[in-house]
Amino acid sequence: MKISARNVLKGKVKQVTPGAVNSEIIVEIPGGVEMVSIITKASAEKLGLKAGKEVYAIVKASSVMIGID
Amino acid sequence: MKISARNVLKGKVKQVTPGAVNSEIIVEIPGGVEMVSIITKASAEKLGLKAGKEVYAIVKASSVMIGID
Amino acid sequence: MKISARNVLKGKVKQVTPGAVNSEIIVEIPGGVEMVSIITKASAEKLGLKAGKEVYAIVKASSVMIGID
Amino acid sequence: MKISARNVLKGKVKQVTPGAVNSEIIVEIPGGVEMVSIITKASAEKLGLKAGKEVYAIVKASSVMIGID
Amino acid sequence: MKISARNVLKGKVKQVTPGAVNSEIIVEIPGGVEMVSIITKASAEKLGLKAGKEVYAIVKASSVMIGID
Amino acid sequence: MKISARNVLKGKVKQVTPGAVNSEIIVEIPGGVEMVSIITKASAEKLGLKAGKEVYAIVKASSVMIGID
Repeated sequence: MKISARNVLKGKVKQVTPGAVNSEIIVEIPGGVEMVSIITKASAEKLGLKAGKEVYAIVKASSVMIGID
Repeated sequence: MKISARNVLKGKVKQVTPGAVNSEIIVEIPGGVEMVSIITKASAEKLGLKAGKEVYAIVKASSVMIGID
Repeated sequence: MKISARNVLKGKVKQVTPGAVNSEIIVEIPGGVEMVSIITKASAEKLGLKAGKEVYAIVKASSVMIGID
Repeated sequence: MKISARNVLKGKVKQVTPGAVNSEIIVEIPGGVEMVSIITKASAEKLGLKAGKEVYAIVKASSVMIGID
Repeated sequence: MKISARNVLKGKVKQVTPGAVNSEIIVEIPGGVEMVSIITKASAEKLGLKAGKEVYAIVKASSVMIGID
Repeated sequence: MKISARNVLKGKVKQVTPGAVNSEIIVEIPGGVEMVSIITKASAEKLGLKAGKEVYAIVKASSVMIGID
């Protein structure tokens, strides 16, 4: 499936922290950057997420803000 | 100001495309990755966004999805 | 690609309304329901969206609210 | 109250899974489709959500993405 | 209709700026605070939004970030 | 850091409820209004959030809906 989301960053799962209904996923992307994602625990299990797995961090453009110093 | 958003990626504005109420901002981040952001035109002007400006692309963790091949 | 988003509804594009940076997409899903989506104009063009095309309306679970009468 | 959100889908609660601060709500909508929602536990309790209750799954248009095969 | 969104702030429309597909709505709430909303132009028209109209600015709790100085 | 988010409301933390991965933060803003935020537990701890602390509730304009009676 191809998706309209403009931000699709390839990386590798670094850590999965499961909660009761949500799980926190930390993804390492090239350039030494980390992305943190909160998805449902059911999704994390269905996708078989665990440290080392190759994944994409996906973000809709309307969810990206801009900051300046 | 420090913000709770877990994803704060340093980069440089590559392109600003203004619309009537929203503007599209393309940000280059290290590792050859681009982030695309939609913010209000008023915000883009207030922050003085233009090509070459150093900025941060900011995303709340709950807005990040995970995909696998 | 498989995605963590819990809501993936199959349907057919009914109408595409392009703006300057965003486009509005109306999708008909089974059961006589319509879903309305705002994505970037660039994404709508890249995916070749036009009336009649089979698509999925995709929503992250954390973006779904509940209402009662 | 009438709301600006363009997607208001009538359905019936199928399952409520409470966590510490959030609850997962599964809603069956006509056409054999399910919608999954994450809302605060406090909201789920305030609305009296439980299996069988008639509800609406509500989504802002800017939160809907489009995918294609 | 009652909605799960935890943030429902009563106010008055101050300004409506229509674009091609989205409109920007500025709402004055008590305490001298303004809220800015981007909704589809179709929703703004359907709700009859114009300066002076009493409205609610509604935000899902998962869309609220926290900042500190 | 200055941020593109159009809604930055000054207030004071009233209550912090930690979950496994997310925490619920209630913020009192002037005019007797409360804002409820869900952020990651890690962010709540990193920002040192506790009752009485001065904070900002921050919301991107595209996350604000409008309701009418």
